[in-house]
Amino acid sequence: MNSKIRVGVVGYGNLGKGVVKALNQNPDMQLEAIFTRRQPESFASDLPFVHMSDIVSYKDRVDVMVMCGGSATDLVEQVPMVAEHFNTVDSFDTHAKIPEFFEQVDAVAKKAGTLSLISTGWDPGLFSLARLLNESIIPEGNEYTFWGKGVSQGHSDAIRRVEGVKDGKQYTIPQASALEKVRTGENPELSTREKHERVCYVVAEEGADLARIEAEIVNMPNYFADYDTTVHFISEAQLLAEHSGMPHGGFVIRTGKTGEDTKQRMEFSLQLESNPEFTASVLVAYTRAVYKLAQAGTTGACTVFDIPFGYLSPKSPEQLRKELL
Amino acid sequence: MNSKIRVGVVGYGNLGKGVVKALNQNPDMQLEAIFTRRQPESFASDLPFVHMSDIVSYKDRVDVMVMCGGSATDLVEQVPMVAEHFNTVDSFDTHAKIPEFFEQVDAVAKKAGTLSLISTGWDPGLFSLARLLNESIIPEGNEYTFWGKGVSQGHSDAIRRVEGVKDGKQYTIPQASALEKVRTGENPELSTREKHERVCYVVAEEGADLARIEAEIVNMPNYFADYDTTVHFISEAQLLAEHSGMPHGGFVIRTGKTGEDTKQRMEFSLQLESNPEFTASVLVAYTRAVYKLAQAGTTGACTVFDIPFGYLSPKSPEQLRKELL
Repeated sequence: MNSKIRVGVVGYGNLGKGVVKALNQNPDMQLEAIFTRRQPESFASDLPFVHMSDIVSYKDRVDVMVMCGGSATDLVEQVPMVAEHFNTVDSFDTHAKIPEFFEQVDAVAKKAGTLSLISTGWDPGLFSLARLLNESIIPEGNEYTFWGKGVSQGHSDAIRRVEGVKDGKQYTIPQASALEKVRTGENPELSTREKHERVCYVVAEEGADLARIEAEIVNMPNYFADYDTTVHFISEAQLLAEHSGMPHGGFVIRTGKTGEDTKQRMEFSLQLESNPEFTASVLVAYTRAVYKLAQAGTTGACTVFDIPFGYLSPKSPEQLRKELL
Repeated sequence: MNSKIRVGVVGYGNLGKGVVKALNQNPDMQLEAIFTRRQPESFASDLPFVHMSDIVSYKDRVDVMVMCGGSATDLVEQVPMVAEHFNTVDSFDTHAKIPEFFEQVDAVAKKAGTLSLISTGWDPGLFSLARLLNESIIPEGNEYTFWGKGVSQGHSDAIRRVEGVKDGKQYTIPQASALEKVRTGENPELSTREKHERVCYVVAEEGADLARIEAEIVNMPNYFADYDTTVHFISEAQLLAEHSGMPHGGFVIRTGKTGEDTKQRMEFSLQLESNPEFTASVLVAYTRAVYKLAQAGTTGACTVFDIPFGYLSPKSPEQLRKELL
């Protein structure tokens, strides 16, 4: 037997915690260290916390680093830095900046002789794979992505910035009628409002003007104005009890035709009780792939589009052909 | 611009016809020849039919051969023969014999310096990919595959062998209640009967004993006895009008957990008006992949597990990252 894949985790927010849990479900991998900008002693835990400034000293002890910071500021800075010394996996999800980020990481990793998988998770990641598979197989068709039901952090933050709001959570929900139209192969042109609705649970400050808060939310440009938005005022206790989770999910659907006018439909969907734990599980499967590809001598940046599914599994090619094909 | 990928089609049944149609939807590929055991002149068509015995003379004119014979007898014989001279793609689907078939084709192709992708289509093929992805990401979970609603050729043939039956079609239908149980994450243990039902449309010979025919069908071992089977007697005209299609599809669902006890669900599904046309479209996308991989120097046998999705697309890696990630 080979020894285990030694994994480092960089950042210990929701995603990093998810990665640590996911590693426990994969016996061929082991957690080597969690790198953090906080003081390692400040964690009340037996986990192997290490200060970020010591990361390079782990060069011979970590096979792959899973980068668990946020896209907005952490990853753009940390991934190129860490890729100079380690193979990495990240979930960079600022769509517009992916090409630039790829080039930057590719240059560093090629020079360093390391391998960096960027922008994995479920979207970008599994949903991107579904879109690519769909359009390659049904070139004449229409592609639809729906998100939810799930909590949007950005929209929840936007609610919390409204004056008089103490706390709040926002759910993005696909419109059942739109999903139905897509599935029947009608190829509808759907407006933003027709695709998703937004439902907000808001805890107001005592004495706040609820009507004004509701109006401010539903009319907020970019975030809510283009959607049917519902606002429910609830107590802080209820928010905590019923809306602490981070569920999410969605649907990637392609309908199109082959031959003369034969309708075909492909659909991929996720229903997740925890968005960060699932994203972490995707990162961990791709950590295995990065390890194997790096062992085989691949360097530079890559994406989910470059990785054969066989590399995601702990099973041998023979076993996969026998059991899963 | 590169020139087009030159494709040969071996066999001109439903699948071969579907491949010819699918090539028309993919402007980066062109049909070079259709190889057949029949007399090429016997086809009332402008398509480029060539007798099977001339196939080797196309060595410099065809980049990839799409093997469209049946698994039972044609493919086991033809694929090793054709792989001696050409890159191939096939839909070999006799699950139990896949490992042996792989080894056999791998030996021939490695020696010849060709590349052979075996056992693609949707099951084996896309469903196999879904199963592999699912279990790699959610190692602690349960995997379910449902087939249908769709026509089963094997079961339709079985009906037609019953005495007094003139013609018949059999639909395999997933039980809605089972699908529902699976989706809720109950992880049910499902018997054969609980997963699928079978519905038969039968045209009886004049004067035949319908009660006996029905009894023979529903009690037929292996094919129907383990299922809830319904038999509808209809006219020949109705069978032709309403049951001439070859619809199929199905669902690959994994439910499992991450972290402490967080439920996660992944689902991939297909709803196809034509099984052979869709299978053909999958083969054609993988033809592109085989062409690119062979250009890059890969030889031997491979499966869908070995092929990065990026190779399926006519788009460049840069374009894929920008548009689909």
